[in-house]
Amino acid sequence: MYNNTFGNIFRLTSFGESHGKAIGGVIDGFPAGISIDEDFIQHELDRRRPGQSALTTARKEADKVEFLSGIYEGVSTGCPIGFVIWNTNQHSNDYDNMKDVFRPSHADYTYTQKYGVRDHRGGGRSSARETIARVVGGALAKLALKQLGVTVTAFTSQVGIYKLDKDYTHYDLSVAEENPVRCPDPEMAKQMGDYIYNIKGEGDTVGGVISCVVKGCPIGLGQPVFGKLHAALGNAMLSINAAKGFEYGQGFGSMNLKGSQQNDLFYNDNGHIALRTNRSGGIQGGISNGEDIYFRVAFKPVATVLMEQPTVDVNGRETVLQARGRHDACVLPRAVPIVEAMTAMTLLDYYLLDRASRLF
Amino acid sequence: MYNNTFGNIFRLTSFGESHGKAIGGVIDGFPAGISIDEDFIQHELDRRRPGQSALTTARKEADKVEFLSGIYEGVSTGCPIGFVIWNTNQHSNDYDNMKDVFRPSHADYTYTQKYGVRDHRGGGRSSARETIARVVGGALAKLALKQLGVTVTAFTSQVGIYKLDKDYTHYDLSVAEENPVRCPDPEMAKQMGDYIYNIKGEGDTVGGVISCVVKGCPIGLGQPVFGKLHAALGNAMLSINAAKGFEYGQGFGSMNLKGSQQNDLFYNDNGHIALRTNRSGGIQGGISNGEDIYFRVAFKPVATVLMEQPTVDVNGRETVLQARGRHDACVLPRAVPIVEAMTAMTLLDYYLLDRASRLF
Amino acid sequence: MYNNTFGNIFRLTSFGESHGKAIGGVIDGFPAGISIDEDFIQHELDRRRPGQSALTTARKEADKVEFLSGIYEGVSTGCPIGFVIWNTNQHSNDYDNMKDVFRPSHADYTYTQKYGVRDHRGGGRSSARETIARVVGGALAKLALKQLGVTVTAFTSQVGIYKLDKDYTHYDLSVAEENPVRCPDPEMAKQMGDYIYNIKGEGDTVGGVISCVVKGCPIGLGQPVFGKLHAALGNAMLSINAAKGFEYGQGFGSMNLKGSQQNDLFYNDNGHIALRTNRSGGIQGGISNGEDIYFRVAFKPVATVLMEQPTVDVNGRETVLQARGRHDACVLPRAVPIVEAMTAMTLLDYYLLDRASRLF
Amino acid sequence: MYNNTFGNIFRLTSFGESHGKAIGGVIDGFPAGISIDEDFIQHELDRRRPGQSALTTARKEADKVEFLSGIYEGVSTGCPIGFVIWNTNQHSNDYDNMKDVFRPSHADYTYTQKYGVRDHRGGGRSSARETIARVVGGALAKLALKQLGVTVTAFTSQVGIYKLDKDYTHYDLSVAEENPVRCPDPEMAKQMGDYIYNIKGEGDTVGGVISCVVKGCPIGLGQPVFGKLHAALGNAMLSINAAKGFEYGQGFGSMNLKGSQQNDLFYNDNGHIALRTNRSGGIQGGISNGEDIYFRVAFKPVATVLMEQPTVDVNGRETVLQARGRHDACVLPRAVPIVEAMTAMTLLDYYLLDRASRLF
Repeated sequence: MYNNTFGNIFRLTSFGESHGKAIGGVIDGFPAGISIDEDFIQHELDRRRPGQSALTTARKEADKVEFLSGIYEGVSTGCPIGFVIWNTNQHSNDYDNMKDVFRPSHADYTYTQKYGVRDHRGGGRSSARETIARVVGGALAKLALKQLGVTVTAFTSQVGIYKLDKDYTHYDLSVAEENPVRCPDPEMAKQMGDYIYNIKGEGDTVGGVISCVVKGCPIGLGQPVFGKLHAALGNAMLSINAAKGFEYGQGFGSMNLKGSQQNDLFYNDNGHIALRTNRSGGIQGGISNGEDIYFRVAFKPVATVLMEQPTVDVNGRETVLQARGRHDACVLPRAVPIVEAMTAMTLLDYYLLDRASRLF
Repeated sequence: MYNNTFGNIFRLTSFGESHGKAIGGVIDGFPAGISIDEDFIQHELDRRRPGQSALTTARKEADKVEFLSGIYEGVSTGCPIGFVIWNTNQHSNDYDNMKDVFRPSHADYTYTQKYGVRDHRGGGRSSARETIARVVGGALAKLALKQLGVTVTAFTSQVGIYKLDKDYTHYDLSVAEENPVRCPDPEMAKQMGDYIYNIKGEGDTVGGVISCVVKGCPIGLGQPVFGKLHAALGNAMLSINAAKGFEYGQGFGSMNLKGSQQNDLFYNDNGHIALRTNRSGGIQGGISNGEDIYFRVAFKPVATVLMEQPTVDVNGRETVLQARGRHDACVLPRAVPIVEAMTAMTLLDYYLLDRASRLF
Repeated sequence: MYNNTFGNIFRLTSFGESHGKAIGGVIDGFPAGISIDEDFIQHELDRRRPGQSALTTARKEADKVEFLSGIYEGVSTGCPIGFVIWNTNQHSNDYDNMKDVFRPSHADYTYTQKYGVRDHRGGGRSSARETIARVVGGALAKLALKQLGVTVTAFTSQVGIYKLDKDYTHYDLSVAEENPVRCPDPEMAKQMGDYIYNIKGEGDTVGGVISCVVKGCPIGLGQPVFGKLHAALGNAMLSINAAKGFEYGQGFGSMNLKGSQQNDLFYNDNGHIALRTNRSGGIQGGISNGEDIYFRVAFKPVATVLMEQPTVDVNGRETVLQARGRHDACVLPRAVPIVEAMTAMTLLDYYLLDRASRLF
Repeated sequence: MYNNTFGNIFRLTSFGESHGKAIGGVIDGFPAGISIDEDFIQHELDRRRPGQSALTTARKEADKVEFLSGIYEGVSTGCPIGFVIWNTNQHSNDYDNMKDVFRPSHADYTYTQKYGVRDHRGGGRSSARETIARVVGGALAKLALKQLGVTVTAFTSQVGIYKLDKDYTHYDLSVAEENPVRCPDPEMAKQMGDYIYNIKGEGDTVGGVISCVVKGCPIGLGQPVFGKLHAALGNAMLSINAAKGFEYGQGFGSMNLKGSQQNDLFYNDNGHIALRTNRSGGIQGGISNGEDIYFRVAFKPVATVLMEQPTVDVNGRETVLQARGRHDACVLPRAVPIVEAMTAMTLLDYYLLDRASRLF
């Protein structure tokens, strides 16, 4: 569950650099007998793909996934699923002037220090292009979760200072996919979109928050004490490029409320144990309680701005960097499917872990 | 790195329930040849211990650690370090009325659903008493980190609505240990302390935020892409009882600032590569860059309030719960050493992982 | 699954040196709801205990296990099971003359080289006394396997040149526990016993082979390709002190037979698929096929002989070692329960892994 | 270290079925800065490739490896190394008659029982074609080990009843690669070759033993107690298709010798601690001692014989199977590079683990 492998039982091992031959991976521990809907998987990749709207980078990447194993006659076999997505539209020359220069707030400096060598083209392994493999893994996980009745829905809830109310139940989440920002409030979506468009015109970038809601999660997922479900989700979210924070349930908010005001009270709802509120965010003691799981992920502005920035090269010489390349002014819209993918993989993994905790 | 084992190379496996015979654990992968300063370890446990001040629970727990293996003539041998802390002051009768009742916003319901059986006494395994084992592991990790010149300092930065400025460099952190709240601003510490005291008088509880700063971290710690250093820290923090959120660097804040305003710029400082700012929080691309690492952890109010609360029992019958037992009105002061312990263990583990990534 | 932790889902983490305070461990991932028969567990420890007969070491070790957590009212709770066995009869002075001397064919030299420090007393961590923790873990695993109808039976099949026929079906295995050698052929048991007794008189030692048979194993256990069931069993057996070899099914034998002579043929046995022979040893392609699993483990003679041996000390000075202490002339009889324990833990772990490979 | 991932720090995750699109994998944890000699890697694959001589299967497989990531300008970057080997010469029709039939002593039955579905073509995932990925991983490991001065040499030491003396020092191992059997005794190689040729003519198969010798292994590799070096090697070897046994050092032999006759005695060799004999096989207490490591692996005859065999189909109906396809009469010669590959990966992994066990 470190380096390039994610998960315990369901495990995605990914590989590939931004401007290498391909992005790809191996999914191990995927249950046998699941129908693999390749159209759905490609649809998920299309949601992440650049060039979907005027808001995102102008790069044209087909990002077609090719499965190499583990699927026979359209059904998973229980064997590892290898896959590749060929890199086809890389403009490596755009990065020639960065070969020996450290971009501010990027991974250039730390990769160089850690490994001694670095593939600088397009950010190499530190590029968010790596998340393609996550979306493939997440799409497969969603196909399995569907059989369990679990749905995962993420959406943009803040861009710069434009933000939704924190209570997701105030919105019709199904609306989010209808606008390029992926925000469930159409009016706010428009404001956010205009703001991103303006920022993009300045050559600058902006951050924000993605929220995610899980419905239908079985009770009992979570491996206390070090594998609490929300700790696993936090780990998954913080592994996404540019993520700076994670909170679930009441999170950093409601500090003005006391314990007696925040506790979720049980009652008997026609013979079933139910909860009057869900401030806990669907997880108690690290274990899902059957309520909606919801959490928020903070993303910083993309570090690559299209304006001159002072910096240094590998020899410490001061220089000025003028980034080229085709970049997003705001990653939020395209990060929504990535948040969903990481959530879906975590849940499937934890579902399988929970199965392993019982004899029958 | 799930269930009851924390870490990859340096690994703590813990056991024990609140009212069982003992809390304990095994530390594996601890380097050989480290002098084990048992007084220091006990001092760390004393920082976590209840009954330190009028602000915390009145429980009297000696919490003396007994090492059973892995240390010979005061030095670590590279063999697993087993240890126990005997439970001696448990008032299990205080919990008799909770045996079949689910406490609101506690783990009672989810443990029962997941495992079918439950040791209800004192919260059983879900009790924060489990964190004793973490403090032992963290103290050992600190002894190793000391040889690397790394220090870890946590402090209370918010209690209810009382909060410090987010910029930790505004404070003299060494002052924090001088007051029972563990807040580095003496004036604010007093206000926070008074507030907790009043809340305690009401039988109610309050949450807050703990901040943590790491100084002297070597460059290069972090295992991209799924083992980013901040993802590991987030995972570690979110595994602590009552934690609801984690953010590092600019986190959820600064959303009004654009990329060009937030990037950390490199310059040449007398022949060394240096950074003008540290908004990234000491980690770039998931790898430490040598700057201070800093992050914040949100804690909800303790769920156990000493007032009547409606709830249900295991059969779904509605009832009213009047908690007894001796509880903290605010966990923040005692959670400070736990945050440090989890940080120290993560850093030592990641230091050893980084060593393993090189041939020489 | 390395260092001091064994298993993937069911995991034993052990600690303790021969002459330290205690041997112990933590068992994580044990299913909830299993009745813990402590008498049975103690009985398994008694089978391993020294001093059972004139054949084994004269050391008197009570080896009483004390459970510290994870069991409530006699039933497993799904929480980690911590346990200790106190060391009470250690004669550390017996080892004073070995403090700086490397015993031939022991771990003294390699531990010193690897770790720089060493607890020399009684072999420290490299002592077979560590296997006590395995027997506790194995006894718990047996309790769970019993509910699945799986039995594990090991026995001594060779001591020096005295050996049974390789085909275990020629013997009534239930007889093995009736003699101190744990050999199911009473006549051979007597010869083996006499031989060990004579060797012991000479101050010398002897090796042999332990065989093991698993009955009732469910079909489907095994995690290809790197987690084949027999690879896991081989790993488990080779982790036992003094083990030098492992073979299952036809193993190293039958090299004079061709493929057509060795294949196990399927037939229809009254509507069920059955096998005419079981040369494969109950595992095909790394996955159990429902037939008996059987394998053999080679053990070298104990390295500690009670005669003078030339050797060197930590400074490379040549010297002569005259071992004292109380040692077994042949570990086979006492290793039988250890082989069973490692087998039981492997099977339970693989059963739980197999559960995790399915959605329903 | 189970399912389709091998190793702890250095980790190979493989994928691919015999008649799927490709075999491939991801190598994670490979140190940065190693020059990747692709000719050497291809040479290793060629040693495994079918069609090398009249002794092996007539299948023509190019088995050219294509690297997709982790290598930049000929040097490893520390990022995961993805690779594929395209399947190009598959005759899937040869397997049409086996679609619903269980081949004796194959994995057909157990895969079907475990997963419910099965890609029957060429044995699917259970085919030894999967070992291509291991040879790629092993070749990379050898490139790293070369920098440490470690060499790994395997050879055929037994085919049917034709066998070498167990003492490998009696042979010039460099001769082994000069004959198609890969046996270091030219005369014995000829007899073995003639025997295999005759067996092949009968449509039958034969098993044997491969021996392996590691020279130059650093002292200190091994992670006691459950990660003993020989246990890891045994696990690695037993994961190879058709392997039935593993022994190292004196193994199953020398049972007629007592402890006093088998111990390896230390002496002072011109100021260095040295050993007079190496019956232990270079490993003591699970840790390498600097002497040659040597072990033997037993392989059963290939299960696919080209003669009629009675069997059953998936519905339990009895039938007769006449295998087609192009198969090896003896896997030993082609398994030699696979044994070396698994050994090299294990050693590199354990070298990196050992690095992680020290602070400096």
